[in-house]
Amino acid sequence: MTDALEQRLAALEDRLRAVEDEQAITRLILSYAPLVDSGCADQVAGLWEPDGVYDVDEILMEGQQQIRAMVKSGNHQRWIAGGCAHFAGAPHITLDGDDATAVCYTLMIVNGPDGFALRRATANHWTLRRTDQGWRAVNRTNRILDGREESPDLLASHFPAAERFRKESV
Amino acid sequence: MTDALEQRLAALEDRLRAVEDEQAITRLILSYAPLVDSGCADQVAGLWEPDGVYDVDEILMEGQQQIRAMVKSGNHQRWIAGGCAHFAGAPHITLDGDDATAVCYTLMIVNGPDGFALRRATANHWTLRRTDQGWRAVNRTNRILDGREESPDLLASHFPAAERFRKESV
Amino acid sequence: MTDALEQRLAALEDRLRAVEDEQAITRLILSYAPLVDSGCADQVAGLWEPDGVYDVDEILMEGQQQIRAMVKSGNHQRWIAGGCAHFAGAPHITLDGDDATAVCYTLMIVNGPDGFALRRATANHWTLRRTDQGWRAVNRTNRILDGREESPDLLASHFPAAERFRKESV
Repeated sequence: MTDALEQRLAALEDRLRAVEDEQAITRLILSYAPLVDSGCADQVAGLWEPDGVYDVDEILMEGQQQIRAMVKSGNHQRWIAGGCAHFAGAPHITLDGDDATAVCYTLMIVNGPDGFALRRATANHWTLRRTDQGWRAVNRTNRILDGREESPDLLASHFPAAERFRKESV
Repeated sequence: MTDALEQRLAALEDRLRAVEDEQAITRLILSYAPLVDSGCADQVAGLWEPDGVYDVDEILMEGQQQIRAMVKSGNHQRWIAGGCAHFAGAPHITLDGDDATAVCYTLMIVNGPDGFALRRATANHWTLRRTDQGWRAVNRTNRILDGREESPDLLASHFPAAERFRKESV
Repeated sequence: MTDALEQRLAALEDRLRAVEDEQAITRLILSYAPLVDSGCADQVAGLWEPDGVYDVDEILMEGQQQIRAMVKSGNHQRWIAGGCAHFAGAPHITLDGDDATAVCYTLMIVNGPDGFALRRATANHWTLRRTDQGWRAVNRTNRILDGREESPDLLASHFPAAERFRKESV
């Protein structure tokens, strides 16, 4: 094989791998909602590394066992029984070799006596790692978009060069 | 061409085709909302195979003719006239050669005298097939996430190894 | 290199480039919400070409300077301070060499004294161009889905062969 051919093939393989990685991470992130809304506790936990962290405003889950326990909890089971959607937007992904970060939004929608209601809109930031079993979450941090400063900070943190405008910074 | 080179090229072609398939299916699923919310009846029906099935909670549509008729119906035309969004989440797709399944969520949002309201959140499960005209839907089943057991069952059914936790199963 | 090999490599390179283009445009469109909801005014404006247009129902912004000013405006800063999500659906993209169009939906969700509310659902149509710095928006037109005819027209316009059914056209 000539050097030119080898380089061309290697370039194709590298680029294709990046495209596949982005699809795989998207698939991982999009699988959370259908798994959690159907109470598939083991599969939800399996999206994370064994010691992965899921950091939500009110609760910090460290490791698969705590994530599994959240899905099995009475609170979560009641959401499922009443009707619930953890609707996720498509993620914006940034790859860096065997690491990646992603940002997306989630909407928690619950069914109640007056019909469906939008309980909250949340900023999501994911850190992921390529493992022998494919991509897994290392950390997922969720912050509700209710005006707390952490939430827009979390959104902006995904874009290295981004700078938040603030009135006092003028 | 050497065997090694042939294998490397064939592997690239296969992997690229899978990536393209996933994009094409995503595109098909994402085209439903803008076509149905603008009343493009023929194009909506054309997303399905001629004998494709669209199975919604209240109505079972068998074949393109019935799907087209739904879009042209007075009910649907009134949704469009008043303002309506069949907002779809990005699908999670599983390929299997010339067949595929996908799961996603949809939100039906309607405009009314008091502004926009979330009428329902729904679990969607698609079965698709590669045809001479590209990917087409064979079956789409929608179940509203209002607490009925069918809906989380439908979400979980997309993930072969997934198991729903239930209190009584402990 | 034989002609057959050259053709096979060139075909792979072309197809892969189209797949990458679709991912890059998706990434551009999905970056709008986290950037605008965190007030990253320069980065929001940078999604457009220097003379790009952002045409929303109530306001027409021509050029990056006007887009930047919108993000820095008191109105927009108040949305961020109170809690706000410009939730975007994944785009349906049509490539044409160095040009592209995309259609998607956005939901504007705002936090208020009674919790989160869906302020509006909007049809989005993007025109994009490949530049030396990657894909950039040339035009983005948003029309609220409140029953005005422009909005379903905008959705349908993305699909060249699509035809809107209308009662009077029967």
